[in-house]
Amino acid sequence: MSTQPASFDAIDGVVRPDDPHDPRLDDFRDLNNSDHRPDLPDGKGLVIAEGALVVGRLIDSRYPVRAIVGFGSKLRGFIDAYAEEHGIAAEDPASTRVACVQHLHSLGIEIYEVSRALLAEVAGFDMHRGLVAVAQRTEPLSVTQAIDGARTVVVLEGVGDLENIGSIFRNAAGMGVDAVLFGAGCADPLYRRVVRVSMGHVLRLPFAFFEGSTRNWHHSMQQLHEAGFTTVSLTPDPQAPTIAAALQGVEKAALLVGAEGPGLSERTMHYTHTRARIPMAEGTDSLNLATAAAIAFYERDRHLHG
Amino acid sequence: MSTQPASFDAIDGVVRPDDPHDPRLDDFRDLNNSDHRPDLPDGKGLVIAEGALVVGRLIDSRYPVRAIVGFGSKLRGFIDAYAEEHGIAAEDPASTRVACVQHLHSLGIEIYEVSRALLAEVAGFDMHRGLVAVAQRTEPLSVTQAIDGARTVVVLEGVGDLENIGSIFRNAAGMGVDAVLFGAGCADPLYRRVVRVSMGHVLRLPFAFFEGSTRNWHHSMQQLHEAGFTTVSLTPDPQAPTIAAALQGVEKAALLVGAEGPGLSERTMHYTHTRARIPMAEGTDSLNLATAAAIAFYERDRHLHG
Repeated sequence: MSTQPASFDAIDGVVRPDDPHDPRLDDFRDLNNSDHRPDLPDGKGLVIAEGALVVGRLIDSRYPVRAIVGFGSKLRGFIDAYAEEHGIAAEDPASTRVACVQHLHSLGIEIYEVSRALLAEVAGFDMHRGLVAVAQRTEPLSVTQAIDGARTVVVLEGVGDLENIGSIFRNAAGMGVDAVLFGAGCADPLYRRVVRVSMGHVLRLPFAFFEGSTRNWHHSMQQLHEAGFTTVSLTPDPQAPTIAAALQGVEKAALLVGAEGPGLSERTMHYTHTRARIPMAEGTDSLNLATAAAIAFYERDRHLHG
Repeated sequence: MSTQPASFDAIDGVVRPDDPHDPRLDDFRDLNNSDHRPDLPDGKGLVIAEGALVVGRLIDSRYPVRAIVGFGSKLRGFIDAYAEEHGIAAEDPASTRVACVQHLHSLGIEIYEVSRALLAEVAGFDMHRGLVAVAQRTEPLSVTQAIDGARTVVVLEGVGDLENIGSIFRNAAGMGVDAVLFGAGCADPLYRRVVRVSMGHVLRLPFAFFEGSTRNWHHSMQQLHEAGFTTVSLTPDPQAPTIAAALQGVEKAALLVGAEGPGLSERTMHYTHTRARIPMAEGTDSLNLATAAAIAFYERDRHLHG
């Protein structure tokens, strides 16, 4: 299978591969696995962004983008939007596109135009959004770097669900949380699905991993306490103070959230300053993890900004 | 294909069909379509609950359950849990099961034990939860009935996403919202997926549909205003008052939420008392619809009980 993309005025600098085995497309091969960390089987550790909004955020992130691939119309739409957002303009639309492509090249980004069928064959599935970018991972921030200057951070423990992690990044960014910290047992936040669900905010919001195993948890909490954070464990426990009460007068807040179902471990909560609950109607279940976290972020923001 | 279920002590009154064409299993046939409203193609208008928790909620709901089908171990687990929850007890576990089955029969509920393979063939896909109940729809409540005695209601307009509708019911139930009202352009709340995502709360929380078309929207709002409700349109508009400010001193609140993306129409907002926004960090996108609604429910609950 190999087809030429149809009906797109060629742009100087945009390469049009027509062979699915073209080595220049290797970064886009088998996208279902290539976002796995390099230490995992088949993992190439790439950061993958889909769709114009998220691709734009990847380019503006700390991850160096290697290439963008897209269908004609989607690629053109992205280039136009990127040019406008970044103040790239020439005498006419065609020249503006060329200037924008030159700018992206100067950032080290190759641009490929492909047909939908070719991309599906390379990627391993139909990419209906029609625009994908890949970047390299970089060294993660340290916890010290991530919390530097932060007033509100969220700490996740045992959260393996990618949708929840993505939503937490989206909601954290939306409500002024400054960083996301990962304790033990969490999924990798740079999975393609997290990038997508977070709408690219995982690429913008600082995050870091607490070092060592769960046995060092008190050291992790101590690091936050020494940096002036009040650590607050979210729990459905009806005996706990409400989140509104727990956040009263708190200067720097670290909100701890555990996995849906088990929640935070007792061991974890033991090392935090306080527990806090979201008031729930009688006879109902606890909230979805990302929703509970969002309400905590909202309440925190309300305390900070009234 | 036809197999006898293995390793389950027979319970008196539990029928064990072994023919996928058994007409007694007709209600469980083609479950991907049979939840569609009866006026839609192939729609049988059944209400379908999956898993022990939600099946229990269906039995306790206003929808008359016709039958429950399950794998041996799942069925036994459900019967034991239902017996315990409803105070059904006899001299030994086996007799308690029989008594529980008799009780369910007295409610008009047939109980079938099947193999996983048989259920997959009948239902049209593998039901890994292993327990399903079907009920008949009943006449929906009128808006007047649904808002009777309510202090907080949520009104949806143009919300077609089943996950969002399910989450809204779950969150509404959890945070003390009394009813869900549907304006134009919403998906049917009795779809199997809504039942599942709502964790069965769509079966418990009153809901109703505003009559007539979008042209009657001002009549719909008038009905709420005459019943003493302050109507509050959720919007990302940064000029709108915050949700906390908008809910100050409100006795009876109707929170209006539009679809993700377009949001509420101007026409709709025009007929409401006030607009309200959730404060968002600069340069971020609006929240997911169900998350935004959850924060509004939380804020409302805080005003009432905080």
